[in-house]
Amino acid sequence: MMIKVEQIKKQLEALAQFNATPGVGVTRMAFTPEERQARDYLRREMEAVGLEVYTDAAGNMFGRREGTDSMAAPVMIGSHLDTVRHGGAFDGAAGVVVALEVARVMQERKLATTHPVEVVVLTEEEGGRFGAGLYGSRAMVSDLSVELDKTDADGITQRQAMQDFGFDPERIGEAVRKPGSIKAFLELHIEQGPVLEKKRTSLGIVETIVGIRTISVTIHGRADHAGTTPMEMRRDALVGASKVIVAINEIARTIGNQTVATVGTIDLKPGAFNVVPAQVEFTVDLRAPAEGLLVKATEKMERMLGQVCGELGLEYVWDQRLGVSPVTTDKEIVELITEIAVAKGFSSRKMVSGAGHDAMMMAKAFPTGLIFVPSKDGISHNKDEYTSKEQIYAGAMLLKEAILDAAIVTEDSLQSVT
Amino acid sequence: MMIKVEQIKKQLEALAQFNATPGVGVTRMAFTPEERQARDYLRREMEAVGLEVYTDAAGNMFGRREGTDSMAAPVMIGSHLDTVRHGGAFDGAAGVVVALEVARVMQERKLATTHPVEVVVLTEEEGGRFGAGLYGSRAMVSDLSVELDKTDADGITQRQAMQDFGFDPERIGEAVRKPGSIKAFLELHIEQGPVLEKKRTSLGIVETIVGIRTISVTIHGRADHAGTTPMEMRRDALVGASKVIVAINEIARTIGNQTVATVGTIDLKPGAFNVVPAQVEFTVDLRAPAEGLLVKATEKMERMLGQVCGELGLEYVWDQRLGVSPVTTDKEIVELITEIAVAKGFSSRKMVSGAGHDAMMMAKAFPTGLIFVPSKDGISHNKDEYTSKEQIYAGAMLLKEAILDAAIVTEDSLQSVT
Repeated sequence: MMIKVEQIKKQLEALAQFNATPGVGVTRMAFTPEERQARDYLRREMEAVGLEVYTDAAGNMFGRREGTDSMAAPVMIGSHLDTVRHGGAFDGAAGVVVALEVARVMQERKLATTHPVEVVVLTEEEGGRFGAGLYGSRAMVSDLSVELDKTDADGITQRQAMQDFGFDPERIGEAVRKPGSIKAFLELHIEQGPVLEKKRTSLGIVETIVGIRTISVTIHGRADHAGTTPMEMRRDALVGASKVIVAINEIARTIGNQTVATVGTIDLKPGAFNVVPAQVEFTVDLRAPAEGLLVKATEKMERMLGQVCGELGLEYVWDQRLGVSPVTTDKEIVELITEIAVAKGFSSRKMVSGAGHDAMMMAKAFPTGLIFVPSKDGISHNKDEYTSKEQIYAGAMLLKEAILDAAIVTEDSLQSVT
Repeated sequence: MMIKVEQIKKQLEALAQFNATPGVGVTRMAFTPEERQARDYLRREMEAVGLEVYTDAAGNMFGRREGTDSMAAPVMIGSHLDTVRHGGAFDGAAGVVVALEVARVMQERKLATTHPVEVVVLTEEEGGRFGAGLYGSRAMVSDLSVELDKTDADGITQRQAMQDFGFDPERIGEAVRKPGSIKAFLELHIEQGPVLEKKRTSLGIVETIVGIRTISVTIHGRADHAGTTPMEMRRDALVGASKVIVAINEIARTIGNQTVATVGTIDLKPGAFNVVPAQVEFTVDLRAPAEGLLVKATEKMERMLGQVCGELGLEYVWDQRLGVSPVTTDKEIVELITEIAVAKGFSSRKMVSGAGHDAMMMAKAFPTGLIFVPSKDGISHNKDEYTSKEQIYAGAMLLKEAILDAAIVTEDSLQSVT
């Protein structure tokens, strides 16, 4: 059975055209016309291969290949199609098209499997619009009805955005899958970091995915005339925010142990060059491989925020938007893929993922595996994101063999069929 | 001779009705229908008092009261009628209606003065539309033909906007007044700052108007994934910018002597919560009452910028956009108004204006004075802008007495006639 890497490359290039910012990376944010085009393209590709396409209430799109036992829990493979603003062509899309290629090969060979195989496109993984990502995978493991009133920068609710996109947000609870209803979830993703390339290793087999906190911080000061207000009479929200941003960086460095913190957005009001800023809102993205590190970091950061605001006569709101604990993948799947990699002659290493992935959510309820392929220069969320054909081929081979194993064999005897 | 403060209040309330944003402050930008209504209203009020109204090529509108020597250089009093977006009812308008009330009192008393007195409404002081304010006053001291091709946000040139408004921009050079052709210019304006109120002082007598530098700073780092890039491998443009913003604030405080610096806008790319910022652009508004302070501050700030960027592996651009030197008002006028304030029993203090005013331009060519009345809570450019009737009355009294002095006495014996 041949993985056609040219087919994968062609589909990646096609998807990269559905882009709100041609020439400056790929921008395909959730519930936008570009994402609609990408979904429509992939639906046609799924149907061309003979998969039966359906969509759940969270907007997750599935291409199903029936098993010999249609009542058996499906094996799912896939990733997401949305990107960050000015992102790359591989993050998410690579996992989707590799999954589709695996299904295509199975179709081509008319291979019968006990368990159905479903290629899945998960909704809004990046979370750039409503401030909370992993949306589609979270909707498969817990009821997200409570999040429907979250608003984007224009004040549009998630409910409205989903309705406008043709989904049915009021039925979001129906997207939740019962325990045992998915036999396994496997995701292939680019590493988005420098480790595999630096270690000259073809494949990463993820054992732990870091926990994440995303926090929205708002600092309130007072708008004053930039010329007539003496420095000592000001309550400058941006000066306060700047001190806090510097401190957040230092706190992450001091705690160490792979703890990272990033302030990636900042919004200022009123935003005129000759007016002292009255309000600054910024986000903190905090990640660490252990819950204790996250707790320690958030406590230090919030304490520092209170201290700086107290000194400068500012007020603040610390609003944790997303809190996800570190997650481990399925031990048996990790061992299975490791064995396949060895058998196929690919170099591999077990590793920690510093990025959140849909696999992180799926792992809470279902046996889950996560395979990394290298990222050139560790670059991601950037137009220069790149993984070579050979690297993608190795990942596709590993995924295919793992899926065959999971879909063909009986529940209690996981072993390679290579 | 009675200043009727109720008349001033009535006119301020009438002017506030000519407003593009009723309920959210006063918006009466240059060359708009609202400004047209305000000008027409004021023309009628000038004519009702018996002033002879004329307009120059820059659109400055004058209400002239003849002197006993009609060839003598006129004494001018006034300010502007345009506002910022969502501004207040006092900034500019207060100076215009107080000037008109002074002229009305002189008419009522049939007072003969040697020098003519002209009430002036100066064009586009705020500069919100074409990016360069003090338009009318600049046109009186230098030929602005070179600026006619500046465009607003909709691509309309200043030439077109002025033509559409009924002015003759091709004759703009004729608005320039010869040295000696204006005996004195006196402007009353709200302080737009908190000092008079905090010091419980009725009147500010401006000695110096600060010089201004506006600088655009851009810091270039590298976009990286917020989860997979170790802290020590980052080139985070926002961490660099935050350190610089804190330093800019400290530099202004350290230099002191009424030096103020404000970072009022910040723009970040790519601007996603989970991407390390690759680029940050922010503005610095720096003001000080002496050129040496501006030079010292900009040197320190640029050196600090270079140092921070060097340490963090960032690159930067320091782009000075505007540079205006400090201006001093006329020493004799300052002494004259100070004496009048004392004689009338009003508390006053000599002060620095942190805001630019038309008086700043007029002072380049003509003996100029600038009187401040208090701003409640120091608030300006805001719907809550407020100066009490009593405070305006004190300012009007001071202006009236100063004008009588300047208009009645001979050139070489400036003294109070109270």
